[in-house]
Order: sequence, then C-alpha cells, then structure tokens
Amino acid sequence: MINPSASMLVIGDEILSGRTRDSNMYHLAKELTRVGIDLVEVRFVSDEESEIILAVQQLSKKFNYVFTSGGIGPTHDDITADAIGKAFDLRVDINIEAKRLLEKHYGKTGVVLNESRMRMARTPRSAKLIPNSISAAPGFNIENVFVMAGVPAIFQDMIGSVLKDLKAGNPILSRSLNVMSGEGNIAKKLKEFAENNQSLSIGSYPFQLNGSYGTNVVIRGKEENILDEALISLSKLFKVSSDDS
Amino acid sequence: MINPSASMLVIGDEILSGRTRDSNMYHLAKELTRVGIDLVEVRFVSDEESEIILAVQQLSKKFNYVFTSGGIGPTHDDITADAIGKAFDLRVDINIEAKRLLEKHYGKTGVVLNESRMRMARTPRSAKLIPNSISAAPGFNIENVFVMAGVPAIFQDMIGSVLKDLKAGNPILSRSLNVMSGEGNIAKKLKEFAENNQSLSIGSYPFQLNGSYGTNVVIRGKEENILDEALISLSKLFKVSSDDS
Repeated sequence: MINPSASMLVIGDEILSGRTRDSNMYHLAKELTRVGIDLVEVRFVSDEESEIILAVQQLSKKFNYVFTSGGIGPTHDDITADAIGKAFDLRVDINIEAKRLLEKHYGKTGVVLNESRMRMARTPRSAKLIPNSISAAPGFNIENVFVMAGVPAIFQDMIGSVLKDLKAGNPILSRSLNVMSGEGNIAKKLKEFAENNQSLSIGSYPFQLNGSYGTNVVIRGKEENILDEALISLSKLFKVSSDDS
Repeated sequence: MINPSASMLVIGDEILSGRTRDSNMYHLAKELTRVGIDLVEVRFVSDEESEIILAVQQLSKKFNYVFTSGGIGPTHDDITADAIGKAFDLRVDINIEAKRLLEKHYGKTGVVLNESRMRMARTPRSAKLIPNSISAAPGFNIENVFVMAGVPAIFQDMIGSVLKDLKAGNPILSRSLNVMSGEGNIAKKLKEFAENNQSLSIGSYPFQLNGSYGTNVVIRGKEENILDEALISLSKLFKVSSDDS
C-alpha cells in the first residue's frame, strides 16, 4: 500500500523575515510520520495573496493533502481565507457555524465580538470547520486543503483533530545506528547496502562526539521485521554491537 | 530601489520525516534581512532527484537568488550536485580546484581521500566554489543558485562568505510595539493605519503575558526616519508610552 502524500504551506512574513522561528513544520512532520502520511514538500510564502493562491493550487493538485498554517486571525494581515477562496473560486463569507462558535466563546469571556473578530468566522463556502479548543476561532477544510492557525498551540490542537479523521497509511518506522566512523569511511559499504535494500530509505547523517567523527545511519520503512533484520545486517557490516547503537 | 529577491531550497528526507528540525532557514532568513535581500519563498523537498530538479528550475527562474542546503556529502543519499547539474543541463565531474582543497585538507589530517570522499569534489561544469572553512568540502555556485551543506555550522560558514560578495539592497529594518490588548481589539485601528502607511509592511502577532492578551505590532521598512515616525504614531494611536514598548 502506498501512503497518502502531503504537503504543507506555511504563510507569513514574520517567518521569512527571520522574526519568528517556525515550529509548526517540525510538529507536523513528526505527526504525519507517526500516522503514515508522507510529507513530500513544504513551502513557505509571504502574506501576499497571489503567492498563497498559486502555492495552494499547485500543492492541492500534486498531493493528497495540503496543510496550511498562518493568516487566519482578526487583523488586516490575515488574508488566508480570502486567498483560499480565490484559489478554489469560492465566495468567502460569514460561516454560520463559525459565528455561533465565536458568539459562544466571547459570550462566556465577556469580550465584544466586534467586526474584526467576526472576520475569523469567514470561510470559503462549503468549508467544513476544524475545531479550536484553545481560542474557539476555527480552521477550515476545503477539498483536500486544511487551513489552520499559525500560533503553535492552536496549530497543534487543530492538527490533532484533523489527523483523527484522515485516511492515513502505514506509519513510517525507522531504526538508527551510530557508527563511530566518518561518513567518508563507511559511504561505499553503505551505498552497496542501500542498493541491496531498495524497499528501505537509508539516510546518513554526520555528527561529532568528543572530537571524533561519527555517522548516524537511519533506515526508514513500513515493516517492523524488515527494519529489524536490516538493522542487524547493518550492525554486522559496521561491526557495531547492538549495545552501541 | 527594490531589493533583490531570494528563495531557499532545503533538501533532505530527515527534515520532512521529522527526524531533524531544520535551523538553516531561520539563520538564512535573519541574514538576508540584515543585508537587504528579500526572502520570498522557501521550499523543502526530499532526496528525490526529480523533485530537486523541478524546484531548482522554478525557483531560479522566479527569483534573483536561490540558496540550497543539504545533500552535498560523501554518501549515496547526497544527490544535490547531480540534480543541479541536470537542472542546468551541465555535466557533473571532478572539479580540479575542489579536488585540491580536499587533498590539502585530508593530507593534513591523515585521512584517506577515498572514492566516496572524492564525490565531494564533484560539481557541475563551470561552477564557482564556495569555501568551507570547517571541513574543506566546498559548496558551489551555478548561475544564480548557491549550493551549500546541510550541517548548520558549515551552512552558516558558507552563507557568510557568499553574502559578502552578493549584490544586496537596503537592509529591511523593523520596529515593534507591544500593545497590551488582544488583536481583536486593535485590529480596526491597525488596519486603517496600514492603509495610511502603504510603504510599510505591518504585521500583528498575538501573545499572552501573565494571563493577559497582548499584540506585538511589527513595522518593517527600509528607512529609519519613516519607521521612527510610524512608531511614534502607533504609540499614540494605542496610547502606549515609549517606555512600555
């Protein structure tokens, strides 16, 4: 079985300018690996409507799922809902269910649901809402695109509920082995090993420990037993006892 | 004057799988802002040759500069040089100058310059080398594409020398103001302010402090005096004394 493919679109000037270090991509990457959806591409674009539209159209055609983060708050620089509407040629207006959620939330807290806050109830027509248990203002889903907030706690909350309902595949499992030898020393053997194990994805990542060079070899695949066997073969190949790995 | 535009291409399965949290993008974003190059788009792709080729071709057409990170080591999963060669229809072979750098480096350290390590001297023909003061194996530059290592210390070293020689623009400057009021309260005034100051880019970022909601308003532009005036106007608009900002 082939896992569904996914892409992520991170929207926001604050990240491209270096003001903010994004953390949503790292969170999503780990979550998708856990459930068995292959994250194949990630794009970061600025708060520029035409750029968001282009990226959403390209990514939604190319991948099974698109997850977006950022630009759904109450201020003038939050333009994601409008851009997604234009990308799918759908009118964007107040979503009755989203409005009720905001009324309920702000009714409790005594904060005025003014025109700016009401912007957060706007979605493209036919959108399904993504709940937000932290600050009520929902994300939404149009076709294969899931539109979520950029604030990390809210993004994580939303992705948690989205992934519960999504068709996923086999979790991508991994095993790793630390070989206390530089990449250049083990590269030839490792290449042969990769050629003989084409169902696995094999990565090689250098590190330094107490001034010595080492290589972290990561094997990724979908079946426990194949990975375990490959790990044993690799350990023998590089004469690493399993205690050292 | 319009600043040069740039994009970044981060290459590597380890990031898309969530094994590794990328830090090169955050570093590059800050550096480009500092020197006055606008980072407009960032893409992350896997170690898949066709994906790297496609991304490099699209980004190099669309932006003044493309900075890549990852995939130039000695192991089988390091395929960036070949992919860049194919993207520009250039043959990839041993670069004599790169070979000399490796010979000199490994000669000193007593490590054998074997076939795997020699892979790191391969570049597309006509490439200019990017020095690596940490581990010698150079990056390279073809047309408007700058190909650098994924290991953060080496990436930072390489980008330092690349940016010294690159045509840059006016540094993008910023001022920021913390307003102790939720985004929804200040959104309307802030929108009007943004409409009246279209030469500036104005972002709004929510935060929480001791249980209260606040908004960090960031103004970005290229001229000190305009930014300073805008900051004073904003402070008055939201009745924040400059001590509070």
